[in-house]
Formats: sequence, C-alpha cells, structure tokens
Amino acid sequence: MSVHTDPSSEQSAVTVLGLGPMGRALAGAFLDAGLRTTVWNRTPGRDGDLVARGAAAAPSPEAAVAASPLTVVCVVNYDASDAVLRQDAVAAALKGRTVANLTADTPDRARDTAEWAERHGIRYLDGAIMTPTPTIGTDDAVFLLSGPEELYREHRPVLAALGGSQTHLGEDIGRAAAYDIALLDIFWTAMAGYAHALAVARAEGVTATELAPFAGGIAAILPPLFTEFAADADAGTYSGELNPITSAVSTMSHVVHAAEAHGIDASVMRVIEGQARRVVALGHGTDGFTRVAELLARR
Amino acid sequence: MSVHTDPSSEQSAVTVLGLGPMGRALAGAFLDAGLRTTVWNRTPGRDGDLVARGAAAAPSPEAAVAASPLTVVCVVNYDASDAVLRQDAVAAALKGRTVANLTADTPDRARDTAEWAERHGIRYLDGAIMTPTPTIGTDDAVFLLSGPEELYREHRPVLAALGGSQTHLGEDIGRAAAYDIALLDIFWTAMAGYAHALAVARAEGVTATELAPFAGGIAAILPPLFTEFAADADAGTYSGELNPITSAVSTMSHVVHAAEAHGIDASVMRVIEGQARRVVALGHGTDGFTRVAELLARR
Repeated sequence: MSVHTDPSSEQSAVTVLGLGPMGRALAGAFLDAGLRTTVWNRTPGRDGDLVARGAAAAPSPEAAVAASPLTVVCVVNYDASDAVLRQDAVAAALKGRTVANLTADTPDRARDTAEWAERHGIRYLDGAIMTPTPTIGTDDAVFLLSGPEELYREHRPVLAALGGSQTHLGEDIGRAAAYDIALLDIFWTAMAGYAHALAVARAEGVTATELAPFAGGIAAILPPLFTEFAADADAGTYSGELNPITSAVSTMSHVVHAAEAHGIDASVMRVIEGQARRVVALGHGTDGFTRVAELLARR
Repeated sequence: MSVHTDPSSEQSAVTVLGLGPMGRALAGAFLDAGLRTTVWNRTPGRDGDLVARGAAAAPSPEAAVAASPLTVVCVVNYDASDAVLRQDAVAAALKGRTVANLTADTPDRARDTAEWAERHGIRYLDGAIMTPTPTIGTDDAVFLLSGPEELYREHRPVLAALGGSQTHLGEDIGRAAAYDIALLDIFWTAMAGYAHALAVARAEGVTATELAPFAGGIAAILPPLFTEFAADADAGTYSGELNPITSAVSTMSHVVHAAEAHGIDASVMRVIEGQARRVVALGHGTDGFTRVAELLARR
C-alpha cells in the first residue's frame, strides 16, 4: 500500500472515532500506511492493540478530532455518531476540519448531519463501507463516498490507505447512504432467503454443505440478471418474455407449500408471493417479477 | 454437442411432453443432438418450429410416449403433469418405459408421482432445471436428477444432449425437487430484495443502471458466505463474530425506515427484521443471522 503523503506533515494525520471491529480495521489500515493515527472510543480499552502499533490514544473526542485535519467516524448508527460529534467541545474542535462519516444509516440522517456540520463550519463527507472488516486495507474493500467533490479530492490520498475501490457518487450528501441502503436491502433479503432455504433443505435431509455449491451457483446468476433488469426498470418496462411473473407466483407457492408442509415458517415468501399476485391481479401477469418495484412504491 | 448413441436405435429416441418455452428448448436440444424426437403439447400449435427441425408431432400423449423409451415431461406443475400422465391410455403406453419429470414442484409431489409410476410399472426419474431456457443445450445449463442410479445411468447418454452439468443427487426421488425448492427460495427472495432496492434507489434519485454494478458486487460476495455459513449451520453453530445478528437488526431497521420514509412498502424487510429480533430476544444476539434458520423450523 503506497500513500503519497509526507508522514511529517499534518495532512498525513487522521483520527478515527469508534473502535468497534470496523473502526479498528480502519485505524489499522491507516497505521499500516504510515499515517499518524489518533484513536478514541466511547468505551475505553478498545485501543490497546492499535496503540501498540503506533496509534495515539486521545483522552477525549475533542482532543481526538483536534489532532488531525480529517476525522473518520465509524460507529453503530447516527444516534451514536450524533452523541459524539454534537457536543459543544467536539463541534468547536472540528471547526474548519473535515469529518468523513462512514457510519451506516439512512440518507436522511446523512443529510441532517451535513446540515449540522455546515451550521458549525465543519467540512463534511458521508460514506458507506460495503465489504466486511477483513477486506479493509486490501483490494477487496469497497467504499462509497458522497459530498463536495473538492473535499473528496483533498482527502483522497489519506482515504486511499483504506484500500480497495473507492467511488465518489457525487455531491448529494445522501447518495452514499442511499446506495448503502439499497445494497444492504439486497444483501439481507438474499440472506433471509438463504437462511430459509437452509431450514427447508434440512427438513428434506439435505445438508447446508450439500446445498452450498448450488446456492453459490444461484447467486452467481444474479449479477447479469440485475444488469439486464436494470435497463428495463429504468425504462419502466418489465419484460417477462422468458419468465413471466405468473410463473414466478407458481414457484413461490411451491416454496410456501414445501416449507409449511414441514412446519417451517414461510412468512417472508408469503409476503413476496402476495406482492407478485397483486401485480398479476393489476393486469401485469405477462411482465417480469421486477415490476413489483412499481407496486411497492405505489401511492 | 456429441451424444454417444446410435441414431438408428430406439435407444436414441426421446419424447417431450409439454412445449412451453422450456419444453421447446429441451426438444430443440434433443433435435440438435440428432435424436429422434417426438413431441406433444396439450394446447396444439406449439410444435411448428420443432416439426420443421425434424421432430415428429404425436397425435396424442399415449402415441407420444409409445414412440420412445424415455419421455421427458416439462409442464407448469405436477397438477399439469398428472393431468397428462395419469390417463389410463398414457399409463398403459408408459408401462416398462421411463419418465423423467423435469417439471418444477414440491418434493412431496415428486414422491407421489414416483409411487404412482411404480404402481403402473413405469420407471421414474425426477429432475429439476436450475437455469433459464437460453442455457439449455449449452455448457451453462444445470440439471439436478434423482431416482434409481441404474435408471439414471441408462438414460444419461440421451439426457446429455441437454448440455451443461447434470448431477444425480441420489435415489431419494424427492431430492431434486428439494434442492430445486431450496434454490428457488434463495433466488426469488433475493429477487424480491432487488426489486425492493430498485424502488428505494429510485426514490433517492439513483437509477437501476447506476445501482446495477454495485448490486452485482453484493451478489458476488454471497457464494463464499454461503459456503462459510454452511459448515456452521450443519454444526448447529452460527458464528456472529464478524457480523452479529444485533448489527443485522440495526441495518434492517435502517432499510425499513428509509423505505417507509418514501412511502415504499417494506413488509418483506419488516418480516425479516422481526425474525432477527426474535433470535436476539431468544438470547442469541451474538450469533450470526443464519441462526434464523433454527427459528423458522421451531416447533
């Protein structure tokens, strides 16, 4: 990892607030890149390993943010980041400095925090981390950032220490959170399908290990389908030529019946099947399943 | 596609019942492989293209099945396959011959059909097609089959004309349908997540085309996670070290709030979040999300 900053300049210093598993991974990547790294966590005792690796442990959040031109925040949600940042002493110490908030929450919370930052003369980037902690500092990490282009460019050399692909999504401060929410929506819904499939498979005497390679095969067909359906969705057309939603409904009812015949809760698939049946009832039976997106947003 | 059969022998003849898009793809692959192919469909007029390519159009299902030692059935569900197969004349014509039923339905229906077949002296394989019609006859096709090993071996040379990977899952006749149900469960639940993400993204001004590469990236991280969680699930352990279910609950609530703030139905994620919260309430908050599989199957 090569970061083109001068370790002796203040520009190569960074502060990390929040030392959960992800915050520690971020701080570790900054340390690995040779950056002067200051850390702070609400609950003490999380910084031992980082200090041993050269981090400076700040006695307070205001001292932490005062130590660097850039503070990266990664806590559980914006209630937690508000609780740290929106203290008078912290806001005062941040004046003229930059916060990059990589905490996950909703776009509205990101926008609200940006407004707070502007009122206090704090420069603000919002971001989202799309990959698990072990990826941080490696090529596999995926970061999304939004906020002023110029501010992003200014801090990119330091953020580059976090590795992976980092995409600036534009100046709308809520955009990184919007992508984050949409992608986590896909992730956790898919994981719910996987957990349910494990229960059904087990009831049929199929182990998770037996199912895994085929489950992986199913996941592997999703990316090209997402791309294919995206053009349709943006055009407001939902081609069902190869797989009409009526056929999807039939499959969904098989899943519900097979699960419930084993006494397994099928409530998620029952909701999905109900949505698909409504699309059919609204006269779109020959469309593809993704027309459900229109139904969900109906006023 | 090379099929090691002698086109002049009866062993290289095959019948296809059901000429929907998938049935036509199957018959087309048999024809491409040089097999003597007989076709029949309940609704007439679907066989024109296949006859032009050399298929024999049978005047009745009993005539169709009598033309070949192997009949491949691919209709909408087992109600439809029962309606064709469980006619006296058809059952009589099938006696001593083999049915490979590639129709999608539940494991129970597969077992019930196998019992019916045994009562009528009909040899029976059950199967599932895991990939869309354009894959049929290509390396990308994925077929699952279950039933007597010897019977599978006997017909494998003809079935090989369908291309792709063909896995015999064992003698339990319901096993192909069990895998099919579990995999379709993953697929359609994931697709529901995608459709919902499209609605949320659009409300945030993010197009489906903008989201697609990131959505594909999310799908791409699933196969290794499925493999990782499979070993845990089979052991009855659900490690949440990197991502405890409490953290998943927090993310899910963000998705619900972001969606509902735009007036978007979030009922699927509400059900998923509720299941995850129950796992936490049952004392498993430090476990990973896949422990939900245990909750779903609770008696």
